[in-house]
Amino acid sequence: MKKPWTLDPDRLLSSEPSRRSVARSLYEEIKDLPLICPHGHVDPALLADPEATLGTPAELFIIPDHYVFRMLYSQGIPMEELGVPTLDGTPVEQDHRKIWQRFAENFYLFRATPTALWLTDELVNLFGVEEKLDGESAQRVYDHLEEQLAKPEFTPRALFERFNIEVLCTTDAATDTLEHHKTLYQDGWEGRIRPTFRPDAVVNLDASGWHENIERLSEVSGIEVVDYKSFIEALEQRRTFFKEVGALATDHSATSPHTERLSPAQAETIFERALRGDRAADDAARFTAHMLLEFARMSVEDGLVMQLHIGSLRNHNQAIYRRFGLDAGADIPLATDWTRGLHALLNEYGSDVRLVVFTLDESTYSRELAPLAGHYPAMLLGAPWWFFDSPVGMRRYLEGVIETAGIYNTAGFNDDTRAFASIPARHDLWRRVSCEWLAGLILSGVVDEEDAREMAREFAYGLAKRAYGFG
Amino acid sequence: MKKPWTLDPDRLLSSEPSRRSVARSLYEEIKDLPLICPHGHVDPALLADPEATLGTPAELFIIPDHYVFRMLYSQGIPMEELGVPTLDGTPVEQDHRKIWQRFAENFYLFRATPTALWLTDELVNLFGVEEKLDGESAQRVYDHLEEQLAKPEFTPRALFERFNIEVLCTTDAATDTLEHHKTLYQDGWEGRIRPTFRPDAVVNLDASGWHENIERLSEVSGIEVVDYKSFIEALEQRRTFFKEVGALATDHSATSPHTERLSPAQAETIFERALRGDRAADDAARFTAHMLLEFARMSVEDGLVMQLHIGSLRNHNQAIYRRFGLDAGADIPLATDWTRGLHALLNEYGSDVRLVVFTLDESTYSRELAPLAGHYPAMLLGAPWWFFDSPVGMRRYLEGVIETAGIYNTAGFNDDTRAFASIPARHDLWRRVSCEWLAGLILSGVVDEEDAREMAREFAYGLAKRAYGFG
Amino acid sequence: MKKPWTLDPDRLLSSEPSRRSVARSLYEEIKDLPLICPHGHVDPALLADPEATLGTPAELFIIPDHYVFRMLYSQGIPMEELGVPTLDGTPVEQDHRKIWQRFAENFYLFRATPTALWLTDELVNLFGVEEKLDGESAQRVYDHLEEQLAKPEFTPRALFERFNIEVLCTTDAATDTLEHHKTLYQDGWEGRIRPTFRPDAVVNLDASGWHENIERLSEVSGIEVVDYKSFIEALEQRRTFFKEVGALATDHSATSPHTERLSPAQAETIFERALRGDRAADDAARFTAHMLLEFARMSVEDGLVMQLHIGSLRNHNQAIYRRFGLDAGADIPLATDWTRGLHALLNEYGSDVRLVVFTLDESTYSRELAPLAGHYPAMLLGAPWWFFDSPVGMRRYLEGVIETAGIYNTAGFNDDTRAFASIPARHDLWRRVSCEWLAGLILSGVVDEEDAREMAREFAYGLAKRAYGFG
Repeated sequence: MKKPWTLDPDRLLSSEPSRRSVARSLYEEIKDLPLICPHGHVDPALLADPEATLGTPAELFIIPDHYVFRMLYSQGIPMEELGVPTLDGTPVEQDHRKIWQRFAENFYLFRATPTALWLTDELVNLFGVEEKLDGESAQRVYDHLEEQLAKPEFTPRALFERFNIEVLCTTDAATDTLEHHKTLYQDGWEGRIRPTFRPDAVVNLDASGWHENIERLSEVSGIEVVDYKSFIEALEQRRTFFKEVGALATDHSATSPHTERLSPAQAETIFERALRGDRAADDAARFTAHMLLEFARMSVEDGLVMQLHIGSLRNHNQAIYRRFGLDAGADIPLATDWTRGLHALLNEYGSDVRLVVFTLDESTYSRELAPLAGHYPAMLLGAPWWFFDSPVGMRRYLEGVIETAGIYNTAGFNDDTRAFASIPARHDLWRRVSCEWLAGLILSGVVDEEDAREMAREFAYGLAKRAYGFG
Repeated sequence: MKKPWTLDPDRLLSSEPSRRSVARSLYEEIKDLPLICPHGHVDPALLADPEATLGTPAELFIIPDHYVFRMLYSQGIPMEELGVPTLDGTPVEQDHRKIWQRFAENFYLFRATPTALWLTDELVNLFGVEEKLDGESAQRVYDHLEEQLAKPEFTPRALFERFNIEVLCTTDAATDTLEHHKTLYQDGWEGRIRPTFRPDAVVNLDASGWHENIERLSEVSGIEVVDYKSFIEALEQRRTFFKEVGALATDHSATSPHTERLSPAQAETIFERALRGDRAADDAARFTAHMLLEFARMSVEDGLVMQLHIGSLRNHNQAIYRRFGLDAGADIPLATDWTRGLHALLNEYGSDVRLVVFTLDESTYSRELAPLAGHYPAMLLGAPWWFFDSPVGMRRYLEGVIETAGIYNTAGFNDDTRAFASIPARHDLWRRVSCEWLAGLILSGVVDEEDAREMAREFAYGLAKRAYGFG
Repeated sequence: MKKPWTLDPDRLLSSEPSRRSVARSLYEEIKDLPLICPHGHVDPALLADPEATLGTPAELFIIPDHYVFRMLYSQGIPMEELGVPTLDGTPVEQDHRKIWQRFAENFYLFRATPTALWLTDELVNLFGVEEKLDGESAQRVYDHLEEQLAKPEFTPRALFERFNIEVLCTTDAATDTLEHHKTLYQDGWEGRIRPTFRPDAVVNLDASGWHENIERLSEVSGIEVVDYKSFIEALEQRRTFFKEVGALATDHSATSPHTERLSPAQAETIFERALRGDRAADDAARFTAHMLLEFARMSVEDGLVMQLHIGSLRNHNQAIYRRFGLDAGADIPLATDWTRGLHALLNEYGSDVRLVVFTLDESTYSRELAPLAGHYPAMLLGAPWWFFDSPVGMRRYLEGVIETAGIYNTAGFNDDTRAFASIPARHDLWRRVSCEWLAGLILSGVVDEEDAREMAREFAYGLAKRAYGFG
């Protein structure tokens, strides 16, 4: 055990002593606030089943995490050798110790990335690992993790309490029957785990399996989807159902934020073409642009917060997509035109709906999104997303957005993760970075200490809670 | 009076002691230089009429300032309740104390925005307010402001002297008869208040009221505008007139910087279609692209500096536009292609005209504008504009532009404001941020102290003065 | 001699004492590592001829350096007066002392630019100039430089040793016969000076002189280029030849990164149209998009590293282009769509080729290039290029790229210069900025000191060496 592994208690704070001291004092006040998790991808089964575990170290840290395996893949390590399951039956590595060894030998690749920060925080602070991870220490660390993961205090439900999570929202297909959420409701977890209505798979006409998804929609909604009108009715039925099981929000992903209303006849024609399987070239894009408006209308009517996650060209690497499917680390952002894209939506619903918007094009923070959020009552700007959920990403967000939009037109933080055990590490990173940024504002006389303390609390807790209307 | 309100005398300087000390020493040397205000929107009547006042606190700080009311509107406060006048006769709040109360209760929304910095500087340093503004202190602050505003030292002319303004340029429609400027001229203010020729309302064929504007142009120029040729003659007549009353510059706003010469026949055809009221879809855009070239030609001939303010999609919120008209806080920036857009203009006039360019797309600072300004003799880059007239906006500008363009291809600072009383606060902010940036360059050995002192003076005073040819 | 001229030994390091001390300690360890120069534009004749000199001070610092004369031109100094040679026979200044005087009088224009940093480092540290350059000191400095340049220790070959260059790659036309490289090889410089295969002049169908270039290609390859098939064969012959003389890489410049495969028949048709001189409007762009794929295929086959330098609109100022030709300081960057542009190339060859990509659109660092490099095994991100080879440019690169791509998906530094004597200054700047950035990571607890030391070495030396497969 050559290299003791510790984390700097003042990590992510400034090295300038007066600023560090102010930042630390802000951070101390808010670091233990409960976690509000309004958007993420944790599997509700983890919590619904009291017997669920986090699996092996490889299952916990590597196999399901596209942040991790994309980096290893980028350096020539086949995803099959990391145990990532294939759709086409290609065999993958089954020995989790071997997968872990490969990962540990290459852990240096993550230097200076947020993934390294999250993983180190988890390994050291959550699991108590005491030696630095590399190829030499790999198996000893594996032993230690296995031992810890077998303990009752590392079951998901135990961790949920330990993490001090006030509310956790999952993301669920429109066709999901939310059995786990119902179980949790019955188990007394009402309001703590909430579903989010995500209809992409039935809305995006070129989604793979769209016909099957529509059949499933008919089945679960009890409304036979035979045309556009019944499609809308089925969606509305699902929203009502999601609300009954606790949903407060929807989520919509699209390549472009373009919104444009089709006439009822156009919408019907396009939908029928899709049902018949003879879509025209731009049908899917036009239909999505229209449906974003329809979902805004529904949100005005039923009060669900509407989230937009826009601007990624999904499945850029087609060979990887064919073998491994969605979310395989090959979604690549695009330049995004929010100003023109949201024009129709904000003109129809800009005072009525609650809209939370996430971007992967940082050039739009100051150019488009902060001006839009700083004008339209409907719109809040979501936290720095995906690649930008990182120390410098967060700083660019704060610097690019707040001078124009203020903090009260933002929606606070969300962890957007499927890695349940990483949730506290992610919130902690945000809390540190926002306090460090506020310390700079205090010391440069931009805000006073009283205001900064309130702002720190808002960033950590209040903004997200109000944005989504939690309790 | 619970919360004493003061401003940090070292605000916006670094918290690192050695850097703060260097920055302070640079700032001390230039903070009292006269103000050069080459571009802004102050109403010349304020100064032409020796009896003019700044109005009530609500009239001074809230009702005319779209930076202020857009933020309140974005949080659900109707602009009607803020007293913003409507075009459609919808009644608005008349009680200025109530408007002020609403504003004060929501003043926290501006935390960390430049608006808060300007307003605080004005309230504390100009008007001597001593307690922090919030809902509780609102009426006492109002009392205090009313009392101050009634004093002779708070008339616009007295403040003009106190602010140490060397020259102030207004922005005036091509059809303006500049009566106030003539009055000022006669009152011995020659050269201190200058008009700027802004022809957008007669050039943009889809401007609302375009036909009336053309009629007015005929009237004031004495040249009957019946075709493209007479239109050009009338514009040239107005430029001559503006120069006689002291103008040194023109200003042009457009959605896109695209420039492209039409043949005389094409220009004539498009203009006649507009006169007849049957414009083709792209007539307005093509005509603007052509007229930018024509205005460059005129500038070569008459020596007026040509300013371009490009890249905002005006009146994004159509309901707000219909009720409140232009400049209602709903102009949203767009991605801008300067490299291709200015190609025609710079190839025709890139050595001859004096062109000052302003952008709302910060991604073009380092990618397009600094390389263009760092090559073409004609082109200077204007100060960070609008949303970016802010501490971090200024820093991004300095960091994005200067390494490529140097400082001598920039046009210094302008306040671009209609809020007369905020002018010193805005210049002071720029002076602080530029000195802070220069202190960093000194301490990292990039420039020596002697050079930095000269550069600080250039930023504060020299660059703007030379760019526009004052004095 | 009024103004002694020195450089801060801690230049570009933080002014905060603890951070400066950590940065200095990292820098000390790597500052003397040999220089790896995998991409640049040094004339190989300088080194092939043992008698070669660096010329007069004007020839060394001004006449060939478009960074220098573009800035002077932007302030109204005609390039003719700076001695820049014309294509059209317009006479230019011949008195190099006059050119130097003009430059010295205007040296202040470069304040805060990287050009000033490089030039100052060269003048002070390489040539031992002791007084600050301005109009007053100009001729004394000239005298001093002339004296130094006449010494044997200032010949290019002597400097090559003094600079501690391990390997230097030049950039050479596909039609070059590489005589200088062969001479160097025979003189025992094997592996120290390597050519790079750059076929733009025969690939870009709208390059001026394309037909002559194709004739020359036939001549030097021994393969008569009469159609697309023989064109490809001739290119492959040249690549083989370049490899024999030591090439490890190719380089490709294009306005856009768009890649798209033409059918063999389409490629043949377009190429034949070009040979006949009747190209269709988009032939050149389509052919380039196709040829990028072909070159990727060839790189897979012959192992040459493929470099892409994309996104500049060349020769923006047409009058300057007609008089002075290429590389006259008027190449202006464009917004670039890498995500869609490289889609075809990465899908065909994203696991097999070694691709190093350079951008002039910094908004793509975090949005497109880091995600692409952080996924595709083939792709590495090249160093900050051209305008961004500067202190803040480098910092933006590190901040925009590394959190997503890690450092091991980057290709380290290259100086990309034709100014041989500036090579150490450029590498030193990169080494300082990267150590300063790493010091920040150590002090904020993002990486530990052990890792940071390794990373500093990688940035300075290891990454570039491995990316191109040297030694």
